[in-house]
Amino acid sequence: MVSPLESIIIEKLTEIVGGQYISTDDADLVSYSSDFMIDVFLKPDVVILPENASQIAEILKLANENNIGVTPRGAGTATHGGSIAQGGILLDLKRMNKIIEFDPVSMIAVVEPGVVYEDLNRVTGKAGLWFPIEPPSGAVCTIGGMVGNNASGLMALKYGTTKDHILALEVVLANGSIIKTGKSVLKSSSGYDLVHLFVGSEGTLGVITEITIRLIPRPMQISTAFANFQSLTDAMDAIYEIRRVLTPAGIELIDLQTQRAINEMEKEQLVPEVEALVIFEIHEFSAEGLEAQKKLIEWVAQKNNCNELNWAKNDVEREKIWNARKAATVVSVRSRTSTILGDLIVPIKHVPAIIRYIQEVAKETNLLISIVGHAADGNIHYLIPFNKNESKKAFAAADEIVYKTLELGGSVTAEHGIGIEKIKYMELEHGKHALNIMKAIKRILDPGNILNPGKIFPTEKQ
Amino acid sequence: MVSPLESIIIEKLTEIVGGQYISTDDADLVSYSSDFMIDVFLKPDVVILPENASQIAEILKLANENNIGVTPRGAGTATHGGSIAQGGILLDLKRMNKIIEFDPVSMIAVVEPGVVYEDLNRVTGKAGLWFPIEPPSGAVCTIGGMVGNNASGLMALKYGTTKDHILALEVVLANGSIIKTGKSVLKSSSGYDLVHLFVGSEGTLGVITEITIRLIPRPMQISTAFANFQSLTDAMDAIYEIRRVLTPAGIELIDLQTQRAINEMEKEQLVPEVEALVIFEIHEFSAEGLEAQKKLIEWVAQKNNCNELNWAKNDVEREKIWNARKAATVVSVRSRTSTILGDLIVPIKHVPAIIRYIQEVAKETNLLISIVGHAADGNIHYLIPFNKNESKKAFAAADEIVYKTLELGGSVTAEHGIGIEKIKYMELEHGKHALNIMKAIKRILDPGNILNPGKIFPTEKQ
Repeated sequence: MVSPLESIIIEKLTEIVGGQYISTDDADLVSYSSDFMIDVFLKPDVVILPENASQIAEILKLANENNIGVTPRGAGTATHGGSIAQGGILLDLKRMNKIIEFDPVSMIAVVEPGVVYEDLNRVTGKAGLWFPIEPPSGAVCTIGGMVGNNASGLMALKYGTTKDHILALEVVLANGSIIKTGKSVLKSSSGYDLVHLFVGSEGTLGVITEITIRLIPRPMQISTAFANFQSLTDAMDAIYEIRRVLTPAGIELIDLQTQRAINEMEKEQLVPEVEALVIFEIHEFSAEGLEAQKKLIEWVAQKNNCNELNWAKNDVEREKIWNARKAATVVSVRSRTSTILGDLIVPIKHVPAIIRYIQEVAKETNLLISIVGHAADGNIHYLIPFNKNESKKAFAAADEIVYKTLELGGSVTAEHGIGIEKIKYMELEHGKHALNIMKAIKRILDPGNILNPGKIFPTEKQ
Repeated sequence: MVSPLESIIIEKLTEIVGGQYISTDDADLVSYSSDFMIDVFLKPDVVILPENASQIAEILKLANENNIGVTPRGAGTATHGGSIAQGGILLDLKRMNKIIEFDPVSMIAVVEPGVVYEDLNRVTGKAGLWFPIEPPSGAVCTIGGMVGNNASGLMALKYGTTKDHILALEVVLANGSIIKTGKSVLKSSSGYDLVHLFVGSEGTLGVITEITIRLIPRPMQISTAFANFQSLTDAMDAIYEIRRVLTPAGIELIDLQTQRAINEMEKEQLVPEVEALVIFEIHEFSAEGLEAQKKLIEWVAQKNNCNELNWAKNDVEREKIWNARKAATVVSVRSRTSTILGDLIVPIKHVPAIIRYIQEVAKETNLLISIVGHAADGNIHYLIPFNKNESKKAFAAADEIVYKTLELGGSVTAEHGIGIEKIKYMELEHGKHALNIMKAIKRILDPGNILNPGKIFPTEKQ
């Protein structure tokens, strides 16, 4: 699969999609050779932009017969190398960006994989409906990519992850057959759940060409607060106590290292510098209900030694809070040439333990590791910016953090996927037996191993 | 598998579980030969009550080597024949009823499959936490059975189904190996989602021996109302409108036929006799928030010609409402010797269409079909009581209703499972390709087809 494709293959692919939607130009290939963060560059042999499922079926049939790898790609905002390809066909799905159906009575949308997250919500929002994932990259990331990686975002605490909203899929299989699985219904006990086998499979089991999404009402009332705690323990104790009586839309945690980076960039003290800066966001149907929740959060925070808790007074203030959170990723990495972006999850009682551990690793290695996370669901992101000469040390630190995560009963990726970067942890997380079942499922659906080869696990050729 | 087991097998099984936990007595076998409703009686060769996963591993190994079917069973409250066995081993899991872990900080419980639904909630309730499925059979049904069938209940609208709360499983595979899949974390994008492949697989892929459950806060405020509408269309229009701005915990619909049966049994007019009697239940954190939701529901109901809407003033009144709903199943079947209990789901916009269709079928066939359902999520139950001489007509009517369901884009079972009864609809619902994938997955995990043979689909021997 490393050698360039024969010209007869390129000709056939050109016939399928038309000359303007295929490229073997080096400049084009290079632009598809990386994702949002991973430090690996892989160049495909050809990039194709198909228009529909039947073109994809023809492409896969051809690829399958000729043993050519096919890697589907949305916006390329993933961070673990899941959407880059060493040779073979890179399938850019951005032309498949139609909202096929929006049914406000059944509260369902059917979309092609290339639809951008926020574009769907702009349409459904007019009817007061919402696909409530809110990934920070929502302005550009595609729904197909979100499904491929089971993405989540800032509101997962209340609304769950992508998979919790996917009801049905159309999938082109490796052999070119097109299947539909699932229905436009809110629940089912009919046979095995193939829908959720495809969700999160990172394009290794089939190419998803149609996605049926369950929508929910947009919240009528929203409040967002910054709360700062001198101590991480206090902050987490407050979060645990709040979680047990109500379910905020999201609770975010920003560590001291990140706060410093934000203030440095802004050249003013935008955020206080404390051990734990917390964002609470609550969503409610009524203003009265919102007030009651705010009071509870204030009361619990105060009881747990919160220095200060301020609710945004208007949309501008609310946006400022979220911008600070979103900036965290950017500001923390400015100082170095490369960055490792971690994405781990632990049982929520172990959030303080994993954060302390990461801080210890930072201290021991002298790396500036910053931490932001969806604290209330246990999903912690950490950034390790490093220069070339620190590379070995940085990756060793990342490994240590992942091993600790597994020791605490966690998972090596909460929402970013395995891609290339985390393959090495798969057996450690899942064990030999479960991994073998996954591999066997892969072999059923893709016996020639043409779909996103080299991702999730090293699949054997048959 | 139809012939009684050799005595050497019985001896070995006795060695594994001990003499008091195995029986080949005909009286015992007969007591395991039916489920809650299906009109089929199948007798196993032996009933075994294992104590733990390692005993189950030994049993499966022995069964696999000797080609003996093994059918796991919880409380036997299912309705489609999923937990009865034609010969072979019936694995009664009721002794495995330990709550292994309850972690109120991480809001997680780990249980054995034989734990009764309400028993878990009694324990977690002391810490204000809840496994929010509320199946009507919750006082007796086991969590293992709920996982096997992906059961849901009266609150699925707000809280989802069983699968939405299952984080991890321990499973004994057909070959006797024990795997753990999933983690005690709230989300993950690590590899294929095997957890949700096992959930809803009705014991055909492995025997589940440990279940990790995500808990949520119990609602602080609850209100329940009976609302009666002269017209089904008005009732559903009100429900659609409410659904688009807020999410009640549950919305139930009781049809005229059922109301008549309830009143007849109670010998007083317990419920009004209208085309659509609706139950609304809302759950909220604060009394103020609850009031606001009640007002919205009242306003929308009134706008849509609701005759009367009354909120329960206390727990006694609330219980009365739910008892009427739960009685619906019982009262509707008293008059006949057998009953078909239907469980279908359609896109919610088609709820009026499917209800009208069922009513037409009733009229044409002269059968008294009563309808109750989780109207707001599209899941409709219907009961067709019949006498021996009406059997053919009743089953034909049930078929017609299922075909209409599929025509409307629905699923043949929302929460009861396929079992034996609905095998005949599987290819029609899923298509040949998807069904073949399911069969191939079955062959990976159970090549000898020993696990709950003859359920979900006719699996071929290899």
